[in-house]
Amino acid sequence: MASSGSSGSAVPATSAPAPLSPAAAPQVLRRCRELVAPALGEAIDTLHPWIAEMARYALGRCEVGGAPADHSQGKGVRQALAVLGAQVVAGPAEAGVPGAVAVELVHVFSLLHDDIMDGDTLRRGRPAVWKAYGTGPAVLAGDALFALAVEAVARTPHAGPAVRQLTRALGDLVRGQADDLLFAGRPWTGPGAVGAGEYETMAEHKTGALLGCALALGSRLAGAPDRTVTVLDRAGRHLGVAFQIADDVLGIWGDPAATGKPVHGDLRQGKKTLPVLAALNGPGGAELAELLAVSHSLDDAAVRRAAALVERAGGRTAAVREARRHLATADGLLADLPFVPGPAAELRAVLSALADRTL
Amino acid sequence: MASSGSSGSAVPATSAPAPLSPAAAPQVLRRCRELVAPALGEAIDTLHPWIAEMARYALGRCEVGGAPADHSQGKGVRQALAVLGAQVVAGPAEAGVPGAVAVELVHVFSLLHDDIMDGDTLRRGRPAVWKAYGTGPAVLAGDALFALAVEAVARTPHAGPAVRQLTRALGDLVRGQADDLLFAGRPWTGPGAVGAGEYETMAEHKTGALLGCALALGSRLAGAPDRTVTVLDRAGRHLGVAFQIADDVLGIWGDPAATGKPVHGDLRQGKKTLPVLAALNGPGGAELAELLAVSHSLDDAAVRRAAALVERAGGRTAAVREARRHLATADGLLADLPFVPGPAAELRAVLSALADRTL
Repeated sequence: MASSGSSGSAVPATSAPAPLSPAAAPQVLRRCRELVAPALGEAIDTLHPWIAEMARYALGRCEVGGAPADHSQGKGVRQALAVLGAQVVAGPAEAGVPGAVAVELVHVFSLLHDDIMDGDTLRRGRPAVWKAYGTGPAVLAGDALFALAVEAVARTPHAGPAVRQLTRALGDLVRGQADDLLFAGRPWTGPGAVGAGEYETMAEHKTGALLGCALALGSRLAGAPDRTVTVLDRAGRHLGVAFQIADDVLGIWGDPAATGKPVHGDLRQGKKTLPVLAALNGPGGAELAELLAVSHSLDDAAVRRAAALVERAGGRTAAVREARRHLATADGLLADLPFVPGPAAELRAVLSALADRTL
Repeated sequence: MASSGSSGSAVPATSAPAPLSPAAAPQVLRRCRELVAPALGEAIDTLHPWIAEMARYALGRCEVGGAPADHSQGKGVRQALAVLGAQVVAGPAEAGVPGAVAVELVHVFSLLHDDIMDGDTLRRGRPAVWKAYGTGPAVLAGDALFALAVEAVARTPHAGPAVRQLTRALGDLVRGQADDLLFAGRPWTGPGAVGAGEYETMAEHKTGALLGCALALGSRLAGAPDRTVTVLDRAGRHLGVAFQIADDVLGIWGDPAATGKPVHGDLRQGKKTLPVLAALNGPGGAELAELLAVSHSLDDAAVRRAAALVERAGGRTAAVREARRHLATADGLLADLPFVPGPAAELRAVLSALADRTL
């Protein structure tokens, strides 16, 4: 590795580093989390005490009432992408920190509000913020984190373009969530059916925009030229689509012990995901369509039958292929840029680890 | 008037203009609304169509489903303050427009989310957005307007300081709403009681921050120096406290036909407002405290009795006096600045009209 310790290195390695395996990712993510944690904590400390408690609860740092806790709350992929985005363009890791704080706060904000919209009562095995504190307070806490995220970026020397980068992602995030909510009311087949292309646009907005923003913001704060920033944004968006598709595959065939979600959960809820949308055009698609056309939620036997039909119709294979295609596109975009080798290898390790999740 | 038409005037008047009466305010407000409307409409047009419909519904421009409508939805005080904020410092009215768009969007966003938090089902005689479209969609629409507001300001030449001005107001808005929600659970008297000072801080955050931001943003976008921007922000905050106190007086003694709210509504809900807080320390305060100490909501007779006790204990007089004091402070701050006379007179007309509401 060209960089080590929490400060990273702004100096390009003189020789190509040994490629990192996905196994190196946890260490890279930990280094980034440790670098970002003080700034993230300081930002949250500026909030109204009640709102700050909800933010810390959402981050797994306290229980309801404020008693300290240490619940695992995600790997911090977005904040790591912001730090690495600064380092791959030869900036110091610290340059990416305000961007890392911003994308992490936006991520938590979106989870708070999405859980309300989707009626999800659990988040990583604990009551969602709206269940623990009430809907109104959870709406308010999300708003506070949103404002704090913008503020983190507005205080940097590149405030204008950096804030625009963030608001573009925020706009797309809302757009993706709106489409996802509206998909629920649309038919599986016939006029008005959700197409695979629409699905991928939704996934790019809902999941890709913030991953792209993380990479782009980090590099922008480190002074990268517009062209580099744009390519990193695009790469992150493709990564996000791949990530969302992988999530959908896990939502049907994932091990509930590992995902923390019920088996075949997405099928039970009738969610319009890529494996199912792809399967509807495959062999046995008509039988699948008939099964899904019932307006009420499916029982256990019907859900198992639906999962088998989706697999037989090639939905799973098609989804995995599509996710791999987006990952390869992201890889290709990154390979074309003159990145600092050490951080670039770390970035590839993080992306491979994300991909390895299911693919 | 030194300025006329929708473009206003950047040229200081050579002689002091005739003072405008509050009666001139509607015309000033209309001119500002007409100037801002195209930019506001264009901003909303960039949203997801479903979100854009909710935004237009909230602005009174359409019915549920999207059919055009023309419901009165407020006078547009905040957008007018942003336009006048640019003009009083000799900028063109147009310079304030992005700030006007931003504060108007933030105002609508905060109404959408506050109605969810407060459980208010009606807004200006129509179902609140969350009642008309559902809680989740209303949360999402608020988020979209929030992001759009930041974007409007981030696109201006003064993006860095202007966005920081806006995020400071957003942070205060959330802080004020948090305190307002928490006041509900606190006692009227004894340890933990809400003090008049705390109330005024809450009102400054909840209502004053955005009025101050409107004036400050307008002047900043017109290139005013930091000192002027800061004074305008402070003046707007005092105006906001006066405005909130006036609203509280109306919430107890206002004519339901004029306010659109039930008679004695705030007393019925047990809201901690300044007239009541002030009355608790006046003659008959103990009897009032006893009446309010019941945990369930008051019946009609008890509410009438409480209103009479608040008035007899001097709560109404004290509140009106305090509102006048804040207005005078705002006036004094503005009088010290070397403003362009015409727009300054228009600004005073708007402030007087706001104050005339009840005082």
